[in-house]
Amino acid sequence: MRTIEWNPQNNTVQMIDQRLLPGEFRVVEFDDYRQIAKAVTEMVIRGAPAIGAAAAFGLALAAKQSTAVKTKSLKSDLFDAGLVLVAARPTAINLKWAVDRILGLVRDSQVDCDALRSFVLDEAQRIADEDIEINKRMASLGAELLDDGDVVIHHCNTGSLATVDWGTALGVIRTAHESGKRIHVLVDETRPRLQGARLTAWELEQYSIPYEIISDNAAGYFLSSGMVHKVIFGADRVAANGDVVNKIGTYMLALTAHANNVPVFAVVPTSTIDISVMDGSQIPIEERPPEEVLGITLNGQPISPSTAKARNPAFDITPAEIISAIVTERGIVTPPYRMKLKDILQERLEES
Amino acid sequence: MRTIEWNPQNNTVQMIDQRLLPGEFRVVEFDDYRQIAKAVTEMVIRGAPAIGAAAAFGLALAAKQSTAVKTKSLKSDLFDAGLVLVAARPTAINLKWAVDRILGLVRDSQVDCDALRSFVLDEAQRIADEDIEINKRMASLGAELLDDGDVVIHHCNTGSLATVDWGTALGVIRTAHESGKRIHVLVDETRPRLQGARLTAWELEQYSIPYEIISDNAAGYFLSSGMVHKVIFGADRVAANGDVVNKIGTYMLALTAHANNVPVFAVVPTSTIDISVMDGSQIPIEERPPEEVLGITLNGQPISPSTAKARNPAFDITPAEIISAIVTERGIVTPPYRMKLKDILQERLEES
Repeated sequence: MRTIEWNPQNNTVQMIDQRLLPGEFRVVEFDDYRQIAKAVTEMVIRGAPAIGAAAAFGLALAAKQSTAVKTKSLKSDLFDAGLVLVAARPTAINLKWAVDRILGLVRDSQVDCDALRSFVLDEAQRIADEDIEINKRMASLGAELLDDGDVVIHHCNTGSLATVDWGTALGVIRTAHESGKRIHVLVDETRPRLQGARLTAWELEQYSIPYEIISDNAAGYFLSSGMVHKVIFGADRVAANGDVVNKIGTYMLALTAHANNVPVFAVVPTSTIDISVMDGSQIPIEERPPEEVLGITLNGQPISPSTAKARNPAFDITPAEIISAIVTERGIVTPPYRMKLKDILQERLEES
Repeated sequence: MRTIEWNPQNNTVQMIDQRLLPGEFRVVEFDDYRQIAKAVTEMVIRGAPAIGAAAAFGLALAAKQSTAVKTKSLKSDLFDAGLVLVAARPTAINLKWAVDRILGLVRDSQVDCDALRSFVLDEAQRIADEDIEINKRMASLGAELLDDGDVVIHHCNTGSLATVDWGTALGVIRTAHESGKRIHVLVDETRPRLQGARLTAWELEQYSIPYEIISDNAAGYFLSSGMVHKVIFGADRVAANGDVVNKIGTYMLALTAHANNVPVFAVVPTSTIDISVMDGSQIPIEERPPEEVLGITLNGQPISPSTAKARNPAFDITPAEIISAIVTERGIVTPPYRMKLKDILQERLEES
């Protein structure tokens, strides 16, 4: 199944509860857009493209939930829901991108209430379907960057679970693998929430792609030993200058790869590029609960004193100058990024 | 109590079982040097200076255990035990340093069996006592490098628990704190064995030094934000050129600090310097069981698929050129290191 989809039988949104993997595969169902926002905040669903689709389907739910009989008040309900959905998490721009895309069309729409409700659902469906197409396009472009025999370090989870389907960086690895290239993945476990150990490993098992999990800490050892050929990850937001904001730990990984002359690739749909922010320093970095750091157990015991405090920034900023290329569905962009990213977004705007 | 000590009442070696902290403070007792070697391998005791003392007391046990009546055969038993103790872990040089120091004296000794047994124990005691003196000397030298108000990132555990008492890098922090400087420690949790979250946090609680635990991953975020003033850690072995082999993750931390102009300090007794290896690449890096990576649990569940594999290098190499200073008990050494480290070891040799 897709990571997230609309169930037309009962007009609900279904998604895989990613907090339970790899132990349990459970699909949860929501009929209220506020539940979708909560699920995004609590990371039932995560990954920038996936939460973009979640916001889109959240608006479709909001449209169904609204008791408005006049278009104007339905539109008003949708704009209210949009605010709630965008506020669910601050860093990934895809929430805002999906909501803006749908509400921009809603604003200009002249149709009646029922037609508008259908339209919002159709547009959410289009966003979800397009996400898969876009991922497959990025994957076949990006797969050209990987060579037979490559050992690749991958950070966080960027696979089917981080998107509607197929994935961004992990989609590139998957397509390279399916084309017959032998790729070995060193999977950063990705503390604190362990998306690598839990989700990426789970996906790689299903695709029969060879991998080994490593502590994020250990990437430096492998990078400096000369046994790693590429480093690859996704993004939660890319600034106009090419700075990549992604899961915490990406910066140290990219910096260490760069220092060891290992190419660093970010794989991002253009919906993740935010041309309105000049550089990464302007992107809000979410700080999540300390329990995410302190909540694992070792031999059944807490890992820290009961009174311990923790800091838990969820993302960091990887400067554009240490990124070898940004793979988008509209081509592979190499430095300098600013003008090229602008051109790509301009092109997308003109086509839409 | 000390991390490790001789119990004269029953001629055993007592040590704190560090695998159980912070949940349980348990002291374990050994009467066989092979148990000491096993305890080192299994990390009941860890930290380069602490395992040096463990090897020394291991020889004292071996001397007690030996049924030899002739000096020659006692010496032979001790050399056999030395081989077992040195083989317990490959990376930290302190095992070998302590065994070489005692066996060098044993080799030249002319005394009878009972006197030799007492001599080995006395020398092990001296090694343990000296470790504390050396740590306190390093701590007061190193404390000068920390300023009032500093935020310091600390990796792994280098406190009392990593030594016989007081600590190396954490000893520096402790002495600075006790001298009235306000130091705030960001404690790298230090995957996979979490010595930071478990042991360093536990020690800092007892010293009332303010701290917060972070994922190792998150150091880059704090370093690039400008809020960190110093990075400090210990070492398991320092090569002749100043390359520092230390707990996995040290390299990425030091590299990221260096890229952000944050000073990087290694605090190491001269017993950790191995002048016989030209640079870090010649130091064996221990690879430990994958279970150390995969064995934590989240919400009571394993963090990875049951068939997952992992790699687990326990140390990495931080190149001398990104280390701002090496603090030893014989002074603070700044780059270039090679000649200065050689001079310091020469000086130690002449005094002994």
